[in-house]
Amino acid sequence: MRRAAGRRGAASVVVASVVVASVVVTSVVVTSVVVTSVVVTAVVVARLAGMAGLRIALAQVDTWLGDLARNATTVLDACRAAHAAGARLVVLPEMAMTGYPVEDLALRHSFRAATAAAVDRVAAALADEGLGELVVVVGTIGEKTAREHEGAPERPTNRAAVLHRGEVLRTYDKHHLPNYGVFDEFRVFTPGDEDCVLEVDGRRVGLVICEDIWQEGGPVARLAEVGVDVLVVPNASPFEEGKTDVRTALAARRAQQLGAPLVYTNLVGGQDDLVFDGGSFVVGPDGRILASAPQFVEHLLVWDLPEAGEPLADGPQVPDLTPDEAVYRALVTGLAGYVRKNGFRSVALGLSGGIDSALVAAIAADAIGGEHVVGVSMPSVYSSEHSKDDAADLAARIGADYRVQPIAPMVEAFQGQMHLEGLAEENLQARVRGVILMALSNAEGHLVLATGNKTELAVGYSTIYGDAVGGYAPLKDVDKSRVWSLARWRNHAALDARFRPDELAPIPESSITKPPSAELRPGQVDQDSLPPYDVLDRLLDAYVEHAEGRDELLARGFEADMVDRVVTLVDRAEWKRRQYPLGPKVTALAFGRDRRLPVTTRWREEMGR
Amino acid sequence: MRRAAGRRGAASVVVASVVVASVVVTSVVVTSVVVTSVVVTAVVVARLAGMAGLRIALAQVDTWLGDLARNATTVLDACRAAHAAGARLVVLPEMAMTGYPVEDLALRHSFRAATAAAVDRVAAALADEGLGELVVVVGTIGEKTAREHEGAPERPTNRAAVLHRGEVLRTYDKHHLPNYGVFDEFRVFTPGDEDCVLEVDGRRVGLVICEDIWQEGGPVARLAEVGVDVLVVPNASPFEEGKTDVRTALAARRAQQLGAPLVYTNLVGGQDDLVFDGGSFVVGPDGRILASAPQFVEHLLVWDLPEAGEPLADGPQVPDLTPDEAVYRALVTGLAGYVRKNGFRSVALGLSGGIDSALVAAIAADAIGGEHVVGVSMPSVYSSEHSKDDAADLAARIGADYRVQPIAPMVEAFQGQMHLEGLAEENLQARVRGVILMALSNAEGHLVLATGNKTELAVGYSTIYGDAVGGYAPLKDVDKSRVWSLARWRNHAALDARFRPDELAPIPESSITKPPSAELRPGQVDQDSLPPYDVLDRLLDAYVEHAEGRDELLARGFEADMVDRVVTLVDRAEWKRRQYPLGPKVTALAFGRDRRLPVTTRWREEMGR
Repeated sequence: MRRAAGRRGAASVVVASVVVASVVVTSVVVTSVVVTSVVVTAVVVARLAGMAGLRIALAQVDTWLGDLARNATTVLDACRAAHAAGARLVVLPEMAMTGYPVEDLALRHSFRAATAAAVDRVAAALADEGLGELVVVVGTIGEKTAREHEGAPERPTNRAAVLHRGEVLRTYDKHHLPNYGVFDEFRVFTPGDEDCVLEVDGRRVGLVICEDIWQEGGPVARLAEVGVDVLVVPNASPFEEGKTDVRTALAARRAQQLGAPLVYTNLVGGQDDLVFDGGSFVVGPDGRILASAPQFVEHLLVWDLPEAGEPLADGPQVPDLTPDEAVYRALVTGLAGYVRKNGFRSVALGLSGGIDSALVAAIAADAIGGEHVVGVSMPSVYSSEHSKDDAADLAARIGADYRVQPIAPMVEAFQGQMHLEGLAEENLQARVRGVILMALSNAEGHLVLATGNKTELAVGYSTIYGDAVGGYAPLKDVDKSRVWSLARWRNHAALDARFRPDELAPIPESSITKPPSAELRPGQVDQDSLPPYDVLDRLLDAYVEHAEGRDELLARGFEADMVDRVVTLVDRAEWKRRQYPLGPKVTALAFGRDRRLPVTTRWREEMGR
Repeated sequence: MRRAAGRRGAASVVVASVVVASVVVTSVVVTSVVVTSVVVTAVVVARLAGMAGLRIALAQVDTWLGDLARNATTVLDACRAAHAAGARLVVLPEMAMTGYPVEDLALRHSFRAATAAAVDRVAAALADEGLGELVVVVGTIGEKTAREHEGAPERPTNRAAVLHRGEVLRTYDKHHLPNYGVFDEFRVFTPGDEDCVLEVDGRRVGLVICEDIWQEGGPVARLAEVGVDVLVVPNASPFEEGKTDVRTALAARRAQQLGAPLVYTNLVGGQDDLVFDGGSFVVGPDGRILASAPQFVEHLLVWDLPEAGEPLADGPQVPDLTPDEAVYRALVTGLAGYVRKNGFRSVALGLSGGIDSALVAAIAADAIGGEHVVGVSMPSVYSSEHSKDDAADLAARIGADYRVQPIAPMVEAFQGQMHLEGLAEENLQARVRGVILMALSNAEGHLVLATGNKTELAVGYSTIYGDAVGGYAPLKDVDKSRVWSLARWRNHAALDARFRPDELAPIPESSITKPPSAELRPGQVDQDSLPPYDVLDRLLDAYVEHAEGRDELLARGFEADMVDRVVTLVDRAEWKRRQYPLGPKVTALAFGRDRRLPVTTRWREEMGR
């Protein structure tokens, strides 16, 4: 074990064998770890090749959860591309070998052992192809496990493996395990207790993982003490609106703390209710973005760490997306990922002529092609002519497979026996439609999409086993106000042909402009029984996303009656939300694992009065 | 701040004012806390009343989550009963003021503030009634919050409040936060960092909460160092089969470690997917159970800690339940809790004549009375006469409201338009039944019960939006083999009249003995497409509950083909399980929050070969 001599000083101490020193974190003093000899040898090779500085590739890849063979190929392909681009160090995302989040798969020995074997195979394959001199940082899962006490599960680490010359040269285990919001890392991982500094071509490269940089203290503070020339950070950071700015601001603070640039590689692609948006970047200690990768696509971003003492150079940069474009692309990425990774080739959804189903259809067409979208019009006696026309118009615009299944015969069969009225009759119509969609799915293999939006889900204005059927719900985290703005944005985007060239605006204008209605009884419109959507969505944002109590809601100026009514609606709909399909998180707080509340609860905000 | 002088020595140091010393846990050294003066004064009062030793009441109560007013009344009632029984110290369950688990409600300021106010009101009410000399330990939620880092949520503590003379005399915050299985405490709580010893009538009473005693080190080890005369432990420990023995063995180890008896008060009642079974007890340092309360009912257990130096005395004892009786009573408790706490008065379920629906109906009749059970026979053209007879027989035996709704007219209406075959046609029948049950629920207000068992749920042999509809699924964690043994046990139990005197055995014998069939096509029986249930259930137990990999399953002697087939069925059904209703956990690992796996995953155990 040895301590680094001081800031930057340690870089001059070259040792002839691999020194891996480690200390268990029991107090604030943790010794840093320096791996030197192998990499120092590499310096010579690199310099002979005439490179200046250290070329780093940020490999922003899409991994398939649990598909170790596919992910191994993805990693190898990225390394080949990085090598071809002259890179010396490749940084892949957090848990790129496994996909993220693996949830309780982490607790399965068979999964951990197979992953470790896959990592070894990647290292060997790189050497076999003559890419052994690359230094590859790839996220994976540790094999070593620990348990908190008897009866608690054996938990492994969230690990980054450093591959070099056919072997796993070094590993780093994540120290800080997020266990809030959508994250359950404390459930399935045990924290690491060793810091990691690599020496590559004479430059000191610090390595931490994702949540480690969200902490003021911890490994970054210690790396700042011993000094590094660059910090590389594999991440699996899910998209939410506005998060790009949070990430870059945070990374800038850490870069400043270190006095060195920070290389942030993020995962991309959809996984269940999470969308990883990529957007990898390099930020300098002065807070300036030095290079950035686009969001929502796989990408190899190459950036050169200059020779010591030289100024930091700019690499490629991409402009930020607007909020509507970012959310829309997140929805497309989430749906495309769910469809492809679960082996579907097509989706089916009900087309009512309304804005929600129109937007979902447009998203689906952008995700997998309109020809793979089955749009089913299921008119009832209450359906208006304009609704049927709008549904057909939409299907034609996106090139969907359009079907018509009137529901009157089935509704009449039920009613002949059950004589339902009111809400029960309204729900019956929605449920007959659900049965039709699921029957099509069973017969033809389509993934059924639920078209409900976040506002409806919040207040329980959806019919469980009716319009709520499906495997995936693209608008689950998109409130009604946003549905309109996304529809307008998407129609406008058609004009600049970024999605499908020469296309029509996909969404009929009248679907956007007409008053929303479930059309479950004559002349019904949503605003009969709900506050105006712009007010309702602001109230829901405060109550749901910001978990504000009654007093805080009143202080924002909402009327007491409306607050009590809406909050009660939200609380009572929890049982329906629990059975709702997965859908992509795009806000700071989505329904689902992001917001875990009891179904059985008598707590009502008005009790706090 | 002061350190306890040593084992037992500190008890002789009486200070005239309340001394609350605390140390943040940053290393292995933590100073214990002694609260003396107020309680020492109480000694005098108690002794004047002629009490010998210290009478302790374990108040095993059922709390309603979030219903602060109701829970306050429950606590007050328990204190009145304890006082009437001559008790000096009352120990209520973990988070008795709020109910458990509160999940993300813990993150809401309004909820925490209202709970703190309710605790203050209880303390004041006790004093107003002349019960202020009681020392009452009641679980609640802390107000103080901490956050791990910027952007992470503000988390409070899981707290025990000690009420005395109209005030909160002292608080103890749980140190060890379980975050595995069904527990997410690290998500919503921050750990406490102070130990707690009370002095009551001259006796040193240690206080920790639930998970604290699952740790070898921690607060119990420190209390052992400073010495206590008794350790009191409020718990909210959910039922699972066999857990009683685990709890008592563990508590015995802690009592031995302390050289003092341990008083374990557990919550009772159903809360979503958890059933708290009560079964509170006192265990001596020699591992002997000194007193025990019955499971699955509210109970006040009174036990006397003798004068120092006197031998530990036995209090009341109850015999252990058999495994079948314990599981059956857990299912009844879970369902009764869900129905009452969610404001339902009745349940509806489909009666097929099969064993699953028969057992669910029997459980429902025991939980809420047969007259509140609506049993709906929904025969198809494939339903056998004996099935219809068995359904009617069952309904008569339990006194259910029996309805018949043939599904042929509705199925024909769908088929006239859709012409479904095979699986799509089978699922259509199940979904028409689901629509009928939900329509009855909407029209008449019943809670719909899903009747599927754990085996079906594991392999995906249920129709989503069909037989899977409902708000609660009593057999969700009961495998098919257990379904039969519970049915037999329940019929046998009818003979000794422990449930409803003079009743018939509720379940028709032929529902138990005939080969199981979904009756979705002519002559279908489950064993056509599944391994024998006894083999299947053993395989599922190994794969699901013990998370064994393929190699381990083969080592147990299961055939490779069967392993690969069943494991694939389980993995592919995850999306349906995600949308399945809540049901009571009764095994070591239930589907639901106990087993969190991605829906989208390409990991297959055979990849580990």
